[in-house]
Amino acid sequence: MSDPLKNIRWFMEVAYDGTDYLGWQIQPDGLTVQEVLEEKLGMIYANQLIRTESSGRTDAGVHALGQAVTFSAPCRPIVQDWKLYKALNRMLPQSIRIREAREVEEKFHARFSAAGKAYTYVINRGLPNPFSDRWSWNMGDFTDLCELRKSCDRLVGVHDFSSFTVDRKEIDDAVRTIFRIEIHEFGDLVCLTFVGDGFLYKMIRSLMGTLAFAGTGKIKADEVEEILQSRKRAAAHDTAPAQGLFLMKVFYDEESMKKFKLEKPPFWN
Amino acid sequence: MSDPLKNIRWFMEVAYDGTDYLGWQIQPDGLTVQEVLEEKLGMIYANQLIRTESSGRTDAGVHALGQAVTFSAPCRPIVQDWKLYKALNRMLPQSIRIREAREVEEKFHARFSAAGKAYTYVINRGLPNPFSDRWSWNMGDFTDLCELRKSCDRLVGVHDFSSFTVDRKEIDDAVRTIFRIEIHEFGDLVCLTFVGDGFLYKMIRSLMGTLAFAGTGKIKADEVEEILQSRKRAAAHDTAPAQGLFLMKVFYDEESMKKFKLEKPPFWN
Repeated sequence: MSDPLKNIRWFMEVAYDGTDYLGWQIQPDGLTVQEVLEEKLGMIYANQLIRTESSGRTDAGVHALGQAVTFSAPCRPIVQDWKLYKALNRMLPQSIRIREAREVEEKFHARFSAAGKAYTYVINRGLPNPFSDRWSWNMGDFTDLCELRKSCDRLVGVHDFSSFTVDRKEIDDAVRTIFRIEIHEFGDLVCLTFVGDGFLYKMIRSLMGTLAFAGTGKIKADEVEEILQSRKRAAAHDTAPAQGLFLMKVFYDEESMKKFKLEKPPFWN
Repeated sequence: MSDPLKNIRWFMEVAYDGTDYLGWQIQPDGLTVQEVLEEKLGMIYANQLIRTESSGRTDAGVHALGQAVTFSAPCRPIVQDWKLYKALNRMLPQSIRIREAREVEEKFHARFSAAGKAYTYVINRGLPNPFSDRWSWNMGDFTDLCELRKSCDRLVGVHDFSSFTVDRKEIDDAVRTIFRIEIHEFGDLVCLTFVGDGFLYKMIRSLMGTLAFAGTGKIKADEVEEILQSRKRAAAHDTAPAQGLFLMKVFYDEESMKKFKLEKPPFWN
């Protein structure tokens, strides 16, 4: 038994359908995933205020399969520890599911301990469809995967991604490392998976907005590289819709980051 | 060119995410798919009232990939004919998508011309998931596919399905023909596809409620047959949730009904 007077540190992996939420982080003007989760956690911890930390915000409408969340609990939950995950899932709306919950070391932090993240963006080239279109960007003519591949290769590495972010304060550093961008086809769906050490505000949706022009044959990889080099937001194309983006996994060691591979589209189970 | 004074008869195949609708058919107490579709059709036909007929109602929360709809238009749409499908999809919410629209003969009727239908029910045996759980019944222990297969075989054929319907008027005929029930596994998903000449009110969800007991090893095929033979609703188990059910296709000839095969779960594109 651990010391009953000591805080227990928990790690959770959380999946959510972001469609009806104003993103992860608590906002004054609408419902967020964090708000709903903390409300239910409060109930489980006898109405104490439980504050959660995540690996980072996700924007309004963005989904997660593996958002990482940590919190310190001042006491044992009113359910048995191993039931925390099940009890939470019974209380939460179906749009938010806890996929894992376990005790971690006191110093473990969802954001500060992270080594990197994987995001997947889903393009649907198929017939209009009320199911997969909920979680993808429907673009019938997204067929130039060769130019898309070349364009992605220009973006991999250590770059100043100023062209692919918005609302950035000039003083902030815009240098990030993209370790790899993988393209997978599953029937009519094309999934682009970005693995990196961290991403700027709206960076992946900005990259996708420009990559969509490559995938539809409207621009060449050279132009994508020029946009990157310009370090000017105005050079890039519009931001891609939030509904196609999934935070897939947060990595806490290099090994699991290297091994990560998309086996199927994020919403195929 | 067809006679401009003659009605044009249209056939459409409509897909919808039924989660937020009170079913297909117009109701006084909530939003239905038919109401939304007729409102948009009215706009396309210069504010004339367009009445649609479907192959049949679907209940609140039930989805469709191929609901069949016919209507008579008193004039040409205000868009070019070939654009009807695209114009409607631009006006409709994303939860309702027109997959096909074409002119048909004057006597063609979505319900009366139908030879049969296919429905698919989706069971999810995987981890809790806000995506596929939206459109399936999550049952972790649904593993006895052998007893499930045997139970399905007892239900195929011409039977009085009184045990598997609700709110039936005693005078109505409850005899229906199930041509086949196919079971497909796609990763953690188990899909049961029912092909028949027609189905009673809540018949497939009633069948699934009982088949779930076979799939989880709680009853044997013999008991499923006894429930069928009893012709008593009370003998059957609870009705399965609406969210796992999809109207897949309406058939207008025997050949296409025979050839129909589920290639992937209904919401995998």
